[in-house]
Amino acid sequence: MTGVRMPEDLIDAQISPPGQLDILSKYEINKLTDDSRGPQYQLFRNCSLAVLNCGNYMDDGKELLEKYADFDISVIPTERAVKLSVKNAPASAFVDGKMIRGIAEHLFAVLRDIIYVSSEITGDPRYDLVSPQGVTDAVFHILRNAGTFEQSRHPRLVVCWGGHSISREEYDYTKKVGYELALRHLDICTGCGPGAMKGPMKGATIGHAKQRVRDGQYLGITEPGIIAAEAPNPIVNELVIMPDIEKRLEAFVRTGHGVLVFPGGAGTAEEILYLLGILLQEENREQPFPLIFTGPASAAEYFIRIDQFIASTLGDAARSRYQIIIDDPVEVARQMAIGVEKVQEYRKATGDAYYFNWQLKISPEFQRPFAPTHKNMRELALHTNQAPHLLAANLRRAFSGIVSGNVKDEGIREVEKHGCYELHGEKQLMHSMDILLRSFVEQHRMKLPGKVYNPCYRIISGETA
Amino acid sequence: MTGVRMPEDLIDAQISPPGQLDILSKYEINKLTDDSRGPQYQLFRNCSLAVLNCGNYMDDGKELLEKYADFDISVIPTERAVKLSVKNAPASAFVDGKMIRGIAEHLFAVLRDIIYVSSEITGDPRYDLVSPQGVTDAVFHILRNAGTFEQSRHPRLVVCWGGHSISREEYDYTKKVGYELALRHLDICTGCGPGAMKGPMKGATIGHAKQRVRDGQYLGITEPGIIAAEAPNPIVNELVIMPDIEKRLEAFVRTGHGVLVFPGGAGTAEEILYLLGILLQEENREQPFPLIFTGPASAAEYFIRIDQFIASTLGDAARSRYQIIIDDPVEVARQMAIGVEKVQEYRKATGDAYYFNWQLKISPEFQRPFAPTHKNMRELALHTNQAPHLLAANLRRAFSGIVSGNVKDEGIREVEKHGCYELHGEKQLMHSMDILLRSFVEQHRMKLPGKVYNPCYRIISGETA
Amino acid sequence: MTGVRMPEDLIDAQISPPGQLDILSKYEINKLTDDSRGPQYQLFRNCSLAVLNCGNYMDDGKELLEKYADFDISVIPTERAVKLSVKNAPASAFVDGKMIRGIAEHLFAVLRDIIYVSSEITGDPRYDLVSPQGVTDAVFHILRNAGTFEQSRHPRLVVCWGGHSISREEYDYTKKVGYELALRHLDICTGCGPGAMKGPMKGATIGHAKQRVRDGQYLGITEPGIIAAEAPNPIVNELVIMPDIEKRLEAFVRTGHGVLVFPGGAGTAEEILYLLGILLQEENREQPFPLIFTGPASAAEYFIRIDQFIASTLGDAARSRYQIIIDDPVEVARQMAIGVEKVQEYRKATGDAYYFNWQLKISPEFQRPFAPTHKNMRELALHTNQAPHLLAANLRRAFSGIVSGNVKDEGIREVEKHGCYELHGEKQLMHSMDILLRSFVEQHRMKLPGKVYNPCYRIISGETA
Amino acid sequence: MTGVRMPEDLIDAQISPPGQLDILSKYEINKLTDDSRGPQYQLFRNCSLAVLNCGNYMDDGKELLEKYADFDISVIPTERAVKLSVKNAPASAFVDGKMIRGIAEHLFAVLRDIIYVSSEITGDPRYDLVSPQGVTDAVFHILRNAGTFEQSRHPRLVVCWGGHSISREEYDYTKKVGYELALRHLDICTGCGPGAMKGPMKGATIGHAKQRVRDGQYLGITEPGIIAAEAPNPIVNELVIMPDIEKRLEAFVRTGHGVLVFPGGAGTAEEILYLLGILLQEENREQPFPLIFTGPASAAEYFIRIDQFIASTLGDAARSRYQIIIDDPVEVARQMAIGVEKVQEYRKATGDAYYFNWQLKISPEFQRPFAPTHKNMRELALHTNQAPHLLAANLRRAFSGIVSGNVKDEGIREVEKHGCYELHGEKQLMHSMDILLRSFVEQHRMKLPGKVYNPCYRIISGETA
Repeated sequence: MTGVRMPEDLIDAQISPPGQLDILSKYEINKLTDDSRGPQYQLFRNCSLAVLNCGNYMDDGKELLEKYADFDISVIPTERAVKLSVKNAPASAFVDGKMIRGIAEHLFAVLRDIIYVSSEITGDPRYDLVSPQGVTDAVFHILRNAGTFEQSRHPRLVVCWGGHSISREEYDYTKKVGYELALRHLDICTGCGPGAMKGPMKGATIGHAKQRVRDGQYLGITEPGIIAAEAPNPIVNELVIMPDIEKRLEAFVRTGHGVLVFPGGAGTAEEILYLLGILLQEENREQPFPLIFTGPASAAEYFIRIDQFIASTLGDAARSRYQIIIDDPVEVARQMAIGVEKVQEYRKATGDAYYFNWQLKISPEFQRPFAPTHKNMRELALHTNQAPHLLAANLRRAFSGIVSGNVKDEGIREVEKHGCYELHGEKQLMHSMDILLRSFVEQHRMKLPGKVYNPCYRIISGETA
Repeated sequence: MTGVRMPEDLIDAQISPPGQLDILSKYEINKLTDDSRGPQYQLFRNCSLAVLNCGNYMDDGKELLEKYADFDISVIPTERAVKLSVKNAPASAFVDGKMIRGIAEHLFAVLRDIIYVSSEITGDPRYDLVSPQGVTDAVFHILRNAGTFEQSRHPRLVVCWGGHSISREEYDYTKKVGYELALRHLDICTGCGPGAMKGPMKGATIGHAKQRVRDGQYLGITEPGIIAAEAPNPIVNELVIMPDIEKRLEAFVRTGHGVLVFPGGAGTAEEILYLLGILLQEENREQPFPLIFTGPASAAEYFIRIDQFIASTLGDAARSRYQIIIDDPVEVARQMAIGVEKVQEYRKATGDAYYFNWQLKISPEFQRPFAPTHKNMRELALHTNQAPHLLAANLRRAFSGIVSGNVKDEGIREVEKHGCYELHGEKQLMHSMDILLRSFVEQHRMKLPGKVYNPCYRIISGETA
Repeated sequence: MTGVRMPEDLIDAQISPPGQLDILSKYEINKLTDDSRGPQYQLFRNCSLAVLNCGNYMDDGKELLEKYADFDISVIPTERAVKLSVKNAPASAFVDGKMIRGIAEHLFAVLRDIIYVSSEITGDPRYDLVSPQGVTDAVFHILRNAGTFEQSRHPRLVVCWGGHSISREEYDYTKKVGYELALRHLDICTGCGPGAMKGPMKGATIGHAKQRVRDGQYLGITEPGIIAAEAPNPIVNELVIMPDIEKRLEAFVRTGHGVLVFPGGAGTAEEILYLLGILLQEENREQPFPLIFTGPASAAEYFIRIDQFIASTLGDAARSRYQIIIDDPVEVARQMAIGVEKVQEYRKATGDAYYFNWQLKISPEFQRPFAPTHKNMRELALHTNQAPHLLAANLRRAFSGIVSGNVKDEGIREVEKHGCYELHGEKQLMHSMDILLRSFVEQHRMKLPGKVYNPCYRIISGETA
Repeated sequence: MTGVRMPEDLIDAQISPPGQLDILSKYEINKLTDDSRGPQYQLFRNCSLAVLNCGNYMDDGKELLEKYADFDISVIPTERAVKLSVKNAPASAFVDGKMIRGIAEHLFAVLRDIIYVSSEITGDPRYDLVSPQGVTDAVFHILRNAGTFEQSRHPRLVVCWGGHSISREEYDYTKKVGYELALRHLDICTGCGPGAMKGPMKGATIGHAKQRVRDGQYLGITEPGIIAAEAPNPIVNELVIMPDIEKRLEAFVRTGHGVLVFPGGAGTAEEILYLLGILLQEENREQPFPLIFTGPASAAEYFIRIDQFIASTLGDAARSRYQIIIDDPVEVARQMAIGVEKVQEYRKATGDAYYFNWQLKISPEFQRPFAPTHKNMRELALHTNQAPHLLAANLRRAFSGIVSGNVKDEGIREVEKHGCYELHGEKQLMHSMDILLRSFVEQHRMKLPGKVYNPCYRIISGETA
C-alpha cells in the first residue's frame, strides 16, 4: 500500500449499533449527537479511524491521520437510538460492503468511551476524580459500563504486556504462550495493538477452540493517545478506551489476575515499573500477584537487562515479585495457572470480587496523570533517596515520556518543536537507565523494524547519591 | 391471622442481591447505604414491607404498617455490593428460612427504585423533569434501569387494569382471560396488586406453560402510595416502582401494546379517563391502540355505567377508541391479538421502538403530578367548556383523589383530618359523576367486601354549562 | 357439552413435528407411515384422541371413543420427516386454528411411543424383554428416547399418585402440595390424568414461577389402556407412554426420587402395593426412598383404612417405609425435600445415576404384565403363606384387575360379557380386602362423582391361614 | 522427536465421556465393552491412536503404529456409562495430565463410530445396505447419530478438499481462504488431516472470532483407512468416521453446501472425479452445487493439469460444473457465498432439508466400496466407450487405489507384497492419466516433502478407442 490512495480503498457506510447504545432515550440521543460534534470530535474521529484501520499497522499515529485526511464520522440520531455514518473509511474494515461485526463493536466502543463516558462518568460533577478512591471508582465505572464484569466468571484473565514492534520469532512465541494459556482455560487481556498484544490472542483463539471454550474473553484496554499506533485487532471481543495512561494501567492491574511480560521497549519497561511500584507498597505485600517475564531464547538479553536495571534501582524486594522464564511456553502457562489459582483462593478468603481487585492499594503517585512536557520530564526526582515505590513511580514517568516522544501524535509534535527531553538524576541511576535504553536501541526495540531510530531524550547525569 | 402476632410469624434474615445491584463501586455502596438511612428511609421501609407481605392482602396501607410496627430493614455494605437485613419480617416471604426468590427480587427492586433511582435519575440535576420530553425520558430511564426493555422481543405486552377488590366470579374471569391471552403468546402487565391485577398473571402462567413459553413477561408497575394496598404478587417477574401516579400511568401506556380493563372502582375509572384523554389528542389519532373493557355477565352493569358516563361527558370520539366484550374470554384475547398485530405493523412502518411507544403524545396535563389536597380537589375545572382531552384530564384527577381518600395512607389521614373532599362543577357533569360513583358504591366497588364504605368525597353541583 | 355434537367443535388440521421426529431418514419416514397404518393403528388413533381431548375429562374410555367416532389421524410423509393429519379432532386442542404447542408435543409423543417404540425398541429382536435386566433396559430406552434424562439435573422429581376422580377439596389440597414442592425446587411426575394427577402440576407451575425456576420438569407417564380415561393435561412437558402397566410403574419408581400418595381409589391402592412390595425386598433395604401419604383432614379416613389394610396384610416392616401426614402441605413438602436430599447422597455415594435408579431391585413378579382375565383373577394366590413382597405382588394384581374393570375399555367390555371378577383367598385377608374396598365405595372413590358405582368384582373368602 | 521414545512422552489415563455415550443402559454398556474386545479391536485401537497423535503428523499409518506399539485402549464399564482407559498414549494429547477436551471428544467419536455404529447401524440386520436408498440412509443415520444435523442452521457448510502434504505457501493460502469464508459466515468441513484439511479451519477460527460467530461448525469426516495418516486436528468440533471411502465421499457431498478444492495429489483427484461423476448424472443437472478449484499462483500448474485431464476425458459438460480461481481468497469466498445462497433457494423451493442433500442422485457405481486389490485395479474399465459419469466412476477408482498404495496401511502392505498396481485402458486415456500422474510426482504431490516417491502403480496403455 503506497502513498497514492486508490479510490476503491475507501468506503462510505452507515452502521447500526451491534448490541450496545441501542436502547436510548431522546435525551441521550440528543446528547450523544451534540457531544460528538463538540470539543471531543477530533478525539472521537481519530480513535474511530484507528479502530477502522486495524490490520494495517502504521508505527505512528501521525502517519495514519495524514493518510486518511478525508475520513469523517458522525452520529446520526434515529427514532430510538443512533447510527454512525462513516465517510472515506478504510475498505479493510468491510466484507462485501458490510462492516465486520468485531470492528463495528469497536467503533461503538469508541463512541461509548469517548463521548458517553466523558459526559456520564468523568464529566459528571457528582463524581470525585481526585481522591484515590474516586479515581478507582471511575476506573470501575468505565469498565462496568463497557460490560467487562461478569459475576459468575472465575479468575482467569491474564494481562499480556510487550512490544507492538517485535520480531517474527518473538511474535510466534507470544502466539505459542497464548495457545498454552488457553489450553489451561485462561483468558487474555492486552493493550490491543499488534505484536505482543495480538499474538497471545491469536494463539488463545486456537487453544480455546481445542478446549471447546466458547466464551473466551479477549479484553483490550487502550487509551486515546496510543490507540492510533496500537489499533485493536478485531479478535478483541471487549474493547475499553480509558481516559488516560494511568487509568489504563490501573484497569490492567485491577481486572487481570496475573501479568505476563513479553519483550518490548520503553513502553513495556514503563508497565513493569508501574506494577512493581505498586507491589512494593507495604499494603500489597500479602497479595498474590503472578508476574512472569518471558520470551524466546533470542530475547533473553532483553530480560537480563531489565532484571539488572531493577536490581540496581529497586533491589531484591522488587525482584522477588517476578519470575523470568525463557523459551518455555508450557512452563509459563503452567506457572501462570498456578498463580491465578492462588489469586482465586485469596479473593475467596478475603471476600473480594473476582472481576475487580478492590484490595490492591494504588497510591496517588501512580494514579495522577503525568503530562510529559519538557519541564515535567526535566524535573523528575530520579534518585534513590526515596521509598522504592516512589522511585518506581518516577522511573515509570520517565519511560512514559519516552514512549510519548516515540509514538504518540502529541509527543512527536512536542519533540519536533522543542528538541529532545532531558532527564536529570542521580549518577548511578542515570547510568543504569542509560545502559538500559541503549540496549533497547541496540536491540531495535524503539521503533518498527526498518526505520532508523532518532532518540527523543537525552540523559543528563547528576550527583552521586 | 388475628391481631395477636405469634412470634413464629416473624423472621430476621440477610438477603444477597439476586441478580441486580450486585456489582457496585465503593461510591455506590456508600451512597446506597447512606441514602437508605436518609429521608427516603420511611418510604423504603414501607414499600419493602408491602413487598414482603404479599399474599396477605389488607385493604389499606395503614393497617399493614400498624400490624408490622417493629419491622425494620437496612442496607449492609459488603466488600463488593450490598445486602439487605430485615428484622421482624413476615414469615410468609420465606420457605424453610430462605426468602422466595421472586420476593427477594422485589425487595431489591424497591431498593433500586426508591433509593437508587431517586439519587441517580430523578435526583440528578442534569435531568430535566419539567418538560414533557424530560418527564418521558425519566419514565424511560427508570424502566430501562429496571431491565424492562428487550430489543428482540416483539410487541406482546397487554396491560390489564381493574379492581384489586373484586368478586370471586370476576377474579376467575380475569384468570380465564389471562389464560387465553397467554395461549396467544401475549404477556401481562398490571398494577401488581390482588384481584384483577393478579388473576390475569395466574391464568397466563398456565397458558404459557401449555404453549411452552418460558420467557413470559409479567410486568408489575406500581408506585409508593399504592404499593402497600396492592402488594406485587411474586409471579410478577419484573417489578418497577415509578415515583408517582402520573409516571406510573405513562409507563403503562408507553410499554403496553394494548390495554384490557376489568371491573374495578374509582381507580379503574381514573385509568380509563387517563388513557381516553390521551387517545383523544389530535396527534394520537392515527395510532392503533387496542382498548377493551371486559368482565363476566354479572359485571355488565359496571361497564354500561362507565360507557354512559363517557358518552355523556367525552362523547362518541372517545367511545370509538374502545370495545366492550362481555363474558367471552376467547373473543377478548382474539381481538387483543389482532390489535397488537396492528401495533407491530405501525411501529415497524414508523420506525418506532417495540419496547416503548415514543410517538404517543402525552401533554403536560397528564404528566404533572396531582396532589389530592382538599383545595386542589375543590378547584378542579369540571365543565365541558374545554377540549375533551382536557376535560378527561380533570375528571381523571377527580377520581385520583377519591382513590387516595379510599386506600392510600396519606389520603386516608387527610380525610380523617379535614373531612370529605368537595367536588364542584357543571351541573350535568356532576350529575353524571354522581350517578357513576353511586353505582360503584352500590356494586360494592369502593372497598374490600365485608366492610361498610364511608365516602371520602361530596359532590357539589355547580352551574349548567 | 351434550351428546349432540356441534360441527364447530371439530377441526381438521395438519401438524408439523414440534422438536422431535423432525430429522428422519427415508427408511424411517416409510416405516412410520407404514406402521401407523398397520395393526397398531387403533391404539395410535385412540391414544391420539385422548391426548387431543384433554380438558374434557370423561370417566371411561368407551365414552370418549363413541363421542368422536369420526375422528381420524394419519401420518403424512414429507421430504425430510412426517406430518400428522387429523380429521374431526376436538376443537379445544386449538387456539385460533393452531394446535396448542403442548398438545402437539403430546400428539407426537404418541406417535413416538406407540409406533416408533414398538418397532425400534420393544419390537427389535435383538432386545431381550424377558429377563429382569432386559425389561429394565427397555424401560430405560423408552424413557431416554423420550428425552427424559438430563445428565446435569440434580435429584428433584417427586412422583404424585392419587385418584383422577377426587373432591374439589382434595384437588385444591393437591395444588397446595404441588405449590409447596415447587417452592422447594422439586419437580412433579404423575400419571397425567385429571384430579390428583393434575393438581400438583398446576400448583407447581405457580411455585416455580415464584422461585423463577424456568426449567421445571412436569413428567407424565401413562400407558395405552389408561390414557383415554386419564388424558395428559398440557402442562405435562414430557409425556411418555409406556407399553404396559408394569413398565409404567417401573418407570415411576426408577425415575422418581420420592413418591407422594394422595387419596385415590383402587388404582392408588395398586400403586401403593406395588411400591411397598419392591421396598420390602431384602436387596432394597438400604435404599432411601421417601414415601408419604397425604390429604386434607377430610381424607384422613382413606389413609387410615389403607394403613390398617397394610398392617393386617404386610405388617410393620411395610408400615416403616411410609409416613402419613394429614392436612399439612408445608410439612409434606419439607419432609419430601429432606428425603430427596438423602436420595442424592446415596446415589452419589454409590455412583448411581441421578436420572434413573438402576440399583432398585424389581423382581419378575412386579415386571410381568398381568392380564386381568376372569381366570387370572380367580387364581391369584391371596394368602399370607408367602414372602411379604410376593403377597404384595399378588394383592397389587387384584387391585389392578379391579381398576381395569372400572375404567379401562377392555376391562369394561370383559365384565359386561362375563360378569364380575371373582377373588378367592385366605379368610382373614379377604376380609381385610373386603373392608378396604367397601370403604372405597362408601367414600365414592370408585368412579366420577354423580354416577352410581356397580362393583366389577366379588370377594369369595377361602380358608383361614 | 526421534526414534528413541522418552518415557515422559507417554501417559496412562482414564477418560470420562465428554457429552456423548454418557447415558447408557446396562445392555449398551455390556455390548460396548464386549464389542470393543472383539474383532473390531484393532481398528478401534488404531483409530484411537491416530486421534491421540494429532499434531505429530506422520505420512503413513504404518510408521505411527510402529512408533506406539505399546499403546493400548480399553472400554471400562461404570455404573451408568463407560470410561476409556488408555495406556502409553502420546503425551501431546494432554495438558498438565488432563486430556484436551477436543481430543477426548474425538476419542469417544471413535468409540461411537467404530464400535457402536458397527453394532447399531451397519450391523443391524434390519437395515438394507445394498440398495442406493439403503446406503444413503446409512450415511444419514451415522451422521445424525454423531449429532451433525441441526434443524435451525441455514446452509453454510463448505467442504474443503486438497492435499495433506502441501507447501507452506499453499498451506498459508488455505488459511487465508478459510479466514475469508468465515468472514462471510460460512463453516468448514474437511477430511480432517493436516495441510489443506487443517488450514481452512485455522483461518476460519480467526474469521469467526472477528465476526463474533460462536457456533462455527468445523466438521471432520474421515474413515478408518485414512485416519492414521490424516489425524483430525482438535479444532474439528464434530468428528465422524464413516465405515468406508465411498460413504465418506457421500457424506461430504450430501452435508456440504459447496466444495472447494485446494492443490493435492492423487486423493484430491479422486475426490474431484467422484463429485464430477455425480454432477454429470442427468438427474442432478438442475442442482446448484458450487465447486471451485483454487490455490496460490504457484499452484496454478496443478489445476491446469487437472483441467486438461478433465477436458480430455470427461469433456466440457464436466468443465462447466467448476470454476478455477487462482490466488484470490476474497473472490473465492465471495463466489462460494453466492453459490451457497443459490443452494439455499433451491432447497427451500424444493422442500429439501438444509442439513442433508436428499435429492442428489448418487448411483451404485459411486456407492459400492472399491477394494484396491491388484486384480480389481487391473480390471478397471478405463475407456471412453461408456457414459461420462461411469467413466468418472472408474477413473475415481483408479486414483483411489493409488492413494491406498501411497498412504494406507493395508495398501502399502499389498504393494510391498505383490509389487505395483497395473492399470490397463484406452491408449489416449491412459496417456492423459500418465501425464497427470507424472505431473503430480514432479510437483512432489505424492508424499510428504523430503522423501523420495516410489510409484505404487504402472500404467499399461491399451487399444485406441
